Amino acid sequence: MAMDDVREPLKSRKFRRCRSAPLAEHVPLETTNTGSVPVTESIFRNLHPSFRKVGIFLAFYLGIGTICFYLVRNQIKGEKTNGVLDAVYFCIVTMTTVGYGDLVPNSVLSKLLACAFVFTGMALVGLILSKAADYLVEKQEKLLAKALHMHQKVGHIQVLKDVETNSLKYKCIVAFILLLVLISAGTIFLATVEKLDLVDAFYCVCSTITTLGYGDKSFSTQAGRVFAIFWILTSTICLAQFFLYIAELNSQSRQRALVKWVLSRRTTNLDLEAADLDGDGVVGAAEFIIYKLKEMGKISQEDIRLVMEEFEDLDVDQSGTLSISDIVLAQPPSTEK
Amino acid sequence: MAMDDVREPLKSRKFRRCRSAPLAEHVPLETTNTGSVPVTESIFRNLHPSFRKVGIFLAFYLGIGTICFYLVRNQIKGEKTNGVLDAVYFCIVTMTTVGYGDLVPNSVLSKLLACAFVFTGMALVGLILSKAADYLVEKQEKLLAKALHMHQKVGHIQVLKDVETNSLKYKCIVAFILLLVLISAGTIFLATVEKLDLVDAFYCVCSTITTLGYGDKSFSTQAGRVFAIFWILTSTICLAQFFLYIAELNSQSRQRALVKWVLSRRTTNLDLEAADLDGDGVVGAAEFIIYKLKEMGKISQEDIRLVMEEFEDLDVDQSGTLSISDIVLAQPPSTEK
Repeated sequence: MAMDDVREPLKSRKFRRCRSAPLAEHVPLETTNTGSVPVTESIFRNLHPSFRKVGIFLAFYLGIGTICFYLVRNQIKGEKTNGVLDAVYFCIVTMTTVGYGDLVPNSVLSKLLACAFVFTGMALVGLILSKAADYLVEKQEKLLAKALHMHQKVGHIQVLKDVETNSLKYKCIVAFILLLVLISAGTIFLATVEKLDLVDAFYCVCSTITTLGYGDKSFSTQAGRVFAIFWILTSTICLAQFFLYIAELNSQSRQRALVKWVLSRRTTNLDLEAADLDGDGVVGAAEFIIYKLKEMGKISQEDIRLVMEEFEDLDVDQSGTLSISDIVLAQPPSTEK
Repeated sequence: MAMDDVREPLKSRKFRRCRSAPLAEHVPLETTNTGSVPVTESIFRNLHPSFRKVGIFLAFYLGIGTICFYLVRNQIKGEKTNGVLDAVYFCIVTMTTVGYGDLVPNSVLSKLLACAFVFTGMALVGLILSKAADYLVEKQEKLLAKALHMHQKVGHIQVLKDVETNSLKYKCIVAFILLLVLISAGTIFLATVEKLDLVDAFYCVCSTITTLGYGDKSFSTQAGRVFAIFWILTSTICLAQFFLYIAELNSQSRQRALVKWVLSRRTTNLDLEAADLDGDGVVGAAEFIIYKLKEMGKISQEDIRLVMEEFEDLDVDQSGTLSISDIVLAQPPSTEK
């Protein structure tokens, strides 16, 4: 990256930046809009999970779960504290798949309820909450990058560029820091409130955040269970996201190695021939870009074919290029206004 | 898709397919090759996780785990059967984060060991075994597609094309079928060998495959634990993959909606101007493709910039196109032969 920054001003760019398409204006992805929400906002929601929606899902799930398990509380055996609190706690322990076993269903109905809630809970955590968590981490990584660049004299744009390039690295760091905070908080809490000795507290923390949940050590006091409700949900998701970022970092570095190789290998006659999309004997910049991006695996022949079809529909005069007259002829002005 | 198939033969294609780059020949991703392995094979390994490697990792992990937990077997309390078997079983129950709690560490050493093994186990399952599982499912989806197309008169190529387009859908189906088989097998086994009644058996199966593992019902016989070792590992990974495929299917359908919209919206003057990469006033096919693929979010400005830099390095005569004379001048023949 440093190399690019140096080269940029030295070379005179002959080509203009391919400007961004006016994407944000009219993507009609969300078809179930409420009338009042402007379309741009709905896209924003689509890209960044709406926290209101996530909150409603979670509240709905926990609400139903709490009511159900409160109603069958006599069919659940184990260490009990307060009726409603235990129901929420059981719900959280089940949906995160920690499953200590300090409270276990003890009837056919409660067992089947637990089965239903663990599957839906897994889906909720895996498909919805994890996206919200990712978005939260994304917000934090900008703060982290700013903090790290504080002592350097770099502009806002450069920080943002750095975040973009090293996004996953920053996400890993944010998740790791958060994880350390959550592990410490959990250990201290278990040691002080639940009166576990330090090894047991750490062991219980590890057993919880990994969703192992042997259940020999768990939250048995009322205060402990209130803490557990929030702490278990955040810490299990945090660890899962951390592993996810590491996996993504892995495949990203492999992808980058491929990109580097594609850009540094010798270009041969065969390459030129293969890259010559319009068959005019020379390779233009755009043709070269498509050829190389395809080699990097970023685009597929199918992608190219689909767009090419639209191009040929638009290229009315079959000149091999689109001009304003082409698009006027190809797309008669719509009568509906 | 059907529409494309119909249109394909009707229109005369003016443009050649951008041929595939000779990728498979020399990507030097794997730098730690053993001398005897041909390079193409090493790429194959890189793309499709080598089962030998996965097997070695798993055997290594389980081997170390079994030795450790066998050595500290007196510091583990709970329902015991055979020493070595219990150690393997404990290892599997820990690494998959099922954590029944029918065997729990009971000393500082064994607790810390369990903590270490659950983290490494999670990483092993999440980063390595899941990839191998994905590859196995990929192999099965081709069989499934062939079976589904058996009654239709379609060629091998068409089946492969169908698999490529609907890959995730087929993967979902394969994982779902496998899951049903594993759930049935587990329920029947628990009902017959572990003598649980049917609801308890199903409850224990659900509690296991979701890695919930309350532990009130688990595998307590010797035969049960032998079965559990294989069954827990496959069924937990299978369910996790199933959820993963659903999440991917979700984002794929959103991506496809975007592609459809990008291809069907009106092309305007502004689009032409923005797509005109070389500033010659008209938009060639390749420029149009880049513009649209960027709008679809498949490629980024950074991707384009990187390739453009290489293009400008190669374009010695600054003509805006690459010809054979350009690449000969730009890349002097290497002296080392």
